[in-house]
Amino acid sequence: MRFSFTVIAESKRHRGRVGILKTPRGSLITPAFMPVATYGAVKSLSPHELYEVGTRIIVSNTYHLHLRPGEDLIKRAGGLHAFMNWKGFILTDSGGFQIFSLSRLRKITDDGVKFRSPIDGREVFLTPEKAVRIQNALGSDIAMVLDYPIELPASRGETERALEITTRWARRSREEFLRLGHPYQMQFGIVQGGLYEDLRIRSAKELMEIGFEGYAVGGLALGESREDRNRVLDTVLDVLPRDKIRYVMGVGLPEDIYDAVVRGADLFDCVLPTRNPRRGTVFTSEGKINLKSARYAEDFTPLDPLCDCYTCRNYTRAYLRHLFKTNETLAGRLASLHSIYFYNRLLNRLRREILAENGLSMEDVIGK
Amino acid sequence: MRFSFTVIAESKRHRGRVGILKTPRGSLITPAFMPVATYGAVKSLSPHELYEVGTRIIVSNTYHLHLRPGEDLIKRAGGLHAFMNWKGFILTDSGGFQIFSLSRLRKITDDGVKFRSPIDGREVFLTPEKAVRIQNALGSDIAMVLDYPIELPASRGETERALEITTRWARRSREEFLRLGHPYQMQFGIVQGGLYEDLRIRSAKELMEIGFEGYAVGGLALGESREDRNRVLDTVLDVLPRDKIRYVMGVGLPEDIYDAVVRGADLFDCVLPTRNPRRGTVFTSEGKINLKSARYAEDFTPLDPLCDCYTCRNYTRAYLRHLFKTNETLAGRLASLHSIYFYNRLLNRLRREILAENGLSMEDVIGK
Repeated sequence: MRFSFTVIAESKRHRGRVGILKTPRGSLITPAFMPVATYGAVKSLSPHELYEVGTRIIVSNTYHLHLRPGEDLIKRAGGLHAFMNWKGFILTDSGGFQIFSLSRLRKITDDGVKFRSPIDGREVFLTPEKAVRIQNALGSDIAMVLDYPIELPASRGETERALEITTRWARRSREEFLRLGHPYQMQFGIVQGGLYEDLRIRSAKELMEIGFEGYAVGGLALGESREDRNRVLDTVLDVLPRDKIRYVMGVGLPEDIYDAVVRGADLFDCVLPTRNPRRGTVFTSEGKINLKSARYAEDFTPLDPLCDCYTCRNYTRAYLRHLFKTNETLAGRLASLHSIYFYNRLLNRLRREILAENGLSMEDVIGK
Repeated sequence: MRFSFTVIAESKRHRGRVGILKTPRGSLITPAFMPVATYGAVKSLSPHELYEVGTRIIVSNTYHLHLRPGEDLIKRAGGLHAFMNWKGFILTDSGGFQIFSLSRLRKITDDGVKFRSPIDGREVFLTPEKAVRIQNALGSDIAMVLDYPIELPASRGETERALEITTRWARRSREEFLRLGHPYQMQFGIVQGGLYEDLRIRSAKELMEIGFEGYAVGGLALGESREDRNRVLDTVLDVLPRDKIRYVMGVGLPEDIYDAVVRGADLFDCVLPTRNPRRGTVFTSEGKINLKSARYAEDFTPLDPLCDCYTCRNYTRAYLRHLFKTNETLAGRLASLHSIYFYNRLLNRLRREILAENGLSMEDVIGK
């Protein structure tokens, strides 16, 4: 086996856990937050900066990279890690969500999904097998199956149909994945089923029967209430195997990530931690602030007085506000850097708390 | 005296020279290239990155900073250096050039220039004295007088009138500068006179009579031929005092900077080294290349194989092209970083050559 995932510690107060993933790429301690690098770049940040603020895994997008620059080119570059010069882990989302949310002219058949490229209008036909092959060429560490997400709210009938397609596609994805083979890539199934608990359980069990290296909870972060989301997480994470990675897709705000961690989730991704800062909104230890606000015009204190990231060590709110007001791209860059550090610190704190409950420290984990 | 400028070595082959400026801020070795930080930020780059690629002096703009965020705010932040967290030198351009090139509704009287703020349409009246006071508040190391540049080609009459206003404004600027006083700020006069050699000489002499810590050659880089520009530089630099810094404004391309250095100029600024890379065009040791070109789609070699900047050490042309094609702001940032390093290397080479002709090395200069 070229990779292993071990749960090192479980909380005694909630269902949260700390795990360690080992592959030829290195080790990844979970729970971990994954910034979004859709096109193989986390907007405005260099891979070295990301690594420096503690990021060890990012999410890239199969759908986007297939359209530009194409997986063949990336393969010739030596894979996505080499292409973008990133030494951490990469999870590639299959693109299902993007196709369903970005492409208007799409047609879903049992075989796959047909859509028009938003770049050149070209017709693209994506099948579960093709999504596997693209990700194999990209060489990501974790490949996601092509799934069929639906908007919320959705009727039980619609939800059931999407679930069934998702399971069938997952089975075909797994077959293609095993047929192709890859020295270290893992493949994750995606649990659908909307807000129907029995459908969620059915979806999870069908995927577990196929068997994947990890499982994701999809179809969330679509505007459902916090209670509904937590109910779905409670249901699904209770069914999923304890010894496999659990990834909650598209989540989210700091409190959402906390909710998911204490329910036993291991991976998270969300565009907000990079999108919001580019628009001036950042989380700080004093709460969310909008840097464009006039109240910070002469605030010569750090962005977050309790943060020791590069941005907070070097720039004031007044300077950052000025950069936003004059449309300097440095603004979004410095704010994003803080934001990702803020998320990484949150995850780090949650990991340390769970370890401490078990008489362990991060040093014990690193020694493992 | 709180500052000194010493010519350390003069070329035996041309009129180029190496000098060292010492002020309470530190030391600056000339000739030096100044990237443009209009609003107190060099587009997309952090001050630390700038320093790392060898930049020790930048140009900021009095006119822009007066409009946003205003010099009073910057003064309360502890001055422009503290506001933007830049430990190198700052030269502030008076804004004359910008007012004349950016503001359509302007009215020049003998007293100053009236224009409408492009930001809020507010009427702004800038006088030579006010330009001095703004720069005093900003706390730049080198303040430029408000001058009256004109477009080329210009008639002798027009050129003469602009020159005379420039001289009168320079005198008033100097009076205000001396009246205000500043612990370390220097003030430079700006030589006008278009392409008329006798008017250039007259302008230089009138400014020298007033007496400044340094002199700039303005009204160039406005589309004149290389020959015309070099003729003007030959004329003006021959008249300007040998023991004062000479700054050629708005120049330019690598070959233009070379032309100016060998004629005895010490400082240069230009938006091209940061504007062009943001659009995909960069200078390399193999010539100018456009990174958006399809020919680099699968070019997995460094941006510049002979460069050791961060960008060239870490990214391929293919990856940079991909970032440009997908509108990732990281593209312009990485290309700008290389571009500024490229300019700094050019100046560094010219400095070393002049020193070597005199049996000196950079180590000798640093020891001085």
